[in-house]
Amino acid sequence: MKKTSQEESKIHNSRLVLRTIYAQGEISRANVSRLTGLTRTTVSDIVSRFIQQDLVVETGTSPSRGGKPAILLNLADDSRHLLGIDLANSEFRGAVINLRGKVLHRINLPVQERDGEAALSLVFTLIKGLLALTDKPILGIGIGTPGLMDPHAGVVRTAVNLDWRDLPLADLLQEEFNLPTYVANDCQVAALAEFTFNRRQAENNLVVVKVGRGIGAGIILDGKLFYGDNFGAGEIGHMEIVKGGEPCLCGNYGCLETVASSRAIIRRARTLLEKGEPTVLSQLVSSPDEINTDVILKAFEAGDPGVQSIVDEVGQQLGFAIAHLVCALNINRVVIAGSLARFGDRLTRTIQEHVEQGALRALAGETRIEISPLGRDIVILGAASLILSNEVGLV
Amino acid sequence: MKKTSQEESKIHNSRLVLRTIYAQGEISRANVSRLTGLTRTTVSDIVSRFIQQDLVVETGTSPSRGGKPAILLNLADDSRHLLGIDLANSEFRGAVINLRGKVLHRINLPVQERDGEAALSLVFTLIKGLLALTDKPILGIGIGTPGLMDPHAGVVRTAVNLDWRDLPLADLLQEEFNLPTYVANDCQVAALAEFTFNRRQAENNLVVVKVGRGIGAGIILDGKLFYGDNFGAGEIGHMEIVKGGEPCLCGNYGCLETVASSRAIIRRARTLLEKGEPTVLSQLVSSPDEINTDVILKAFEAGDPGVQSIVDEVGQQLGFAIAHLVCALNINRVVIAGSLARFGDRLTRTIQEHVEQGALRALAGETRIEISPLGRDIVILGAASLILSNEVGLV
Repeated sequence: MKKTSQEESKIHNSRLVLRTIYAQGEISRANVSRLTGLTRTTVSDIVSRFIQQDLVVETGTSPSRGGKPAILLNLADDSRHLLGIDLANSEFRGAVINLRGKVLHRINLPVQERDGEAALSLVFTLIKGLLALTDKPILGIGIGTPGLMDPHAGVVRTAVNLDWRDLPLADLLQEEFNLPTYVANDCQVAALAEFTFNRRQAENNLVVVKVGRGIGAGIILDGKLFYGDNFGAGEIGHMEIVKGGEPCLCGNYGCLETVASSRAIIRRARTLLEKGEPTVLSQLVSSPDEINTDVILKAFEAGDPGVQSIVDEVGQQLGFAIAHLVCALNINRVVIAGSLARFGDRLTRTIQEHVEQGALRALAGETRIEISPLGRDIVILGAASLILSNEVGLV
Repeated sequence: MKKTSQEESKIHNSRLVLRTIYAQGEISRANVSRLTGLTRTTVSDIVSRFIQQDLVVETGTSPSRGGKPAILLNLADDSRHLLGIDLANSEFRGAVINLRGKVLHRINLPVQERDGEAALSLVFTLIKGLLALTDKPILGIGIGTPGLMDPHAGVVRTAVNLDWRDLPLADLLQEEFNLPTYVANDCQVAALAEFTFNRRQAENNLVVVKVGRGIGAGIILDGKLFYGDNFGAGEIGHMEIVKGGEPCLCGNYGCLETVASSRAIIRRARTLLEKGEPTVLSQLVSSPDEINTDVILKAFEAGDPGVQSIVDEVGQQLGFAIAHLVCALNINRVVIAGSLARFGDRLTRTIQEHVEQGALRALAGETRIEISPLGRDIVILGAASLILSNEVGLV
């Protein structure tokens, strides 16, 4: 049913008030009115409704500057809980999260080669487990997963690892658990997490590049996650970076993932080991098969020059790709997330250098490459942000 | 002054009605109400005001299907005129344009090495000339120009060719002519032109790549021109395409402009001629200095294999760059404009092929590369769209 413009405006005003309280932390009704441009009466009515719903609480009074001290409002952080789920490659991770993005409980279930129905049933088990951990009202379920999603329909178009194709995941879960359910690509929700829980003052545009087994970006434009015409925005892992390069799983050659993903790093570290030169790496493992990202990180931190040069080259390739994003979109903050974010400052410095070489200097000079502080929880938190965004208009 | 939400909603509704009439061509009040979700009374009030202002006219009645035939409304296409101006490299082009984007009068003034004050004075002359050609009310002046603009402030940040830096162009013209004036980058307004006058049904995202002496893109996202954090979105001419390639005017190496602009084509055609092999090109000119885009186009159309392979290589490089845009944004329609658009289907076919090699196939398969039908007028029309967008909320 189409909403009348009066209903729409009511919803719009409610969300504006809630967003303002959320962003400000503690704030008086008068200041909400000042910041939103809504009348005192409108604000008071909306706030009363939120207080009735336990969504907003009065937390005290502001220090008096003459006159009656104003009552301060805040969000009731724990009045509702969110289920955030990351269908990562090796394990399904889920958490109970409060309205401020605080992880309260978590469950990780190893996937162990499950796919199809078995993988789906593991998602159900995960959610049941999480629901048993909280007795607060649940605002919804949010899911971030690698692959091509249709977030509007809640359908997984293709998730190669899980062998899911055109799976109506949101409907299935909604039916089972009777909770609003949202599904989106893991890199896209990672951007939503960074934008919700680590946003800079007045920031409206943001790119998050998630670099792990795969590489993808989430792009926030004008304050909203941008999905693209077929929901595939941010698929930068398959930008052709090396002409005539290595074959990629996608069927093309020389994609960014072939040179800058964790798989690419592991492959190159194995080659390094096979050369037989004595390195930190060779002290950490006895065979190339034992090499994984954790081991490489240890060798990197211990100053293994071979490993450091592998990481530098990854930074160079990422920088080249990110330079193209900067040219196209002129977005000033680019945040690196995913397992390779653990390579930290040395990685971001190399990326920064190559962005400056690969993009118009006037734009590149304004660009800051940063590491996300959200760590491994970024997809879980992003999945939770999906709920905040859709259910209460935050973000 | 901050508008109250009631005033905002009034403006919003008025613009919605006008946009609906504009998009539909002929439409009854009842259908405007149906399409906008606004009440019949609200629509009637708004339409009455537009009719009073001569902006909308009643054009006849709809064929009766029983009952009273409905009166049809349309935009009064010529009730207001727009001045659209393209500060192109070799000449300043201006036109008087009606509300439907029809060019009614035009003036082109050669720039002849003018820059600084002299170039500015040429803009004044151009506008005076255009104003003398119409006696209709002028809705505003729109200007598209190469370089980095601040469209909100109407300031030219840098326009290298004209030697303008931090020039408050909009204010200067507004003061002189007392007309609302808008300034934006030429490639960005080109996208606005295509989106306003050649939009596909339900299309919300669009990329226009303008390829001439320089290369740049305009990007429409969610129905709006996207400017980026420093208004530099679309500066794809300075994407690094060839690692360690030719030096570019921007100070970096191997930028897209060094291999795919008209200057790059001309340079390569000259090399071809200097080789001394008998070609169509060598019959058209007697010395390499005579080679320009027009001559190259003639040789291309006459089937000169050397020239065709130059154009193919340009298509390949453009395809590589556009593939990166497709990966980042997943936008399905990419339109080629500018002087190199005249190379037509063969160019777009090559671009298409290379987009498929350089981007995730699921996305590239949905991408259509097209030539803009707006030809040399695209910037003039885009500049006019800026006025329509800002003054009456169209686009």
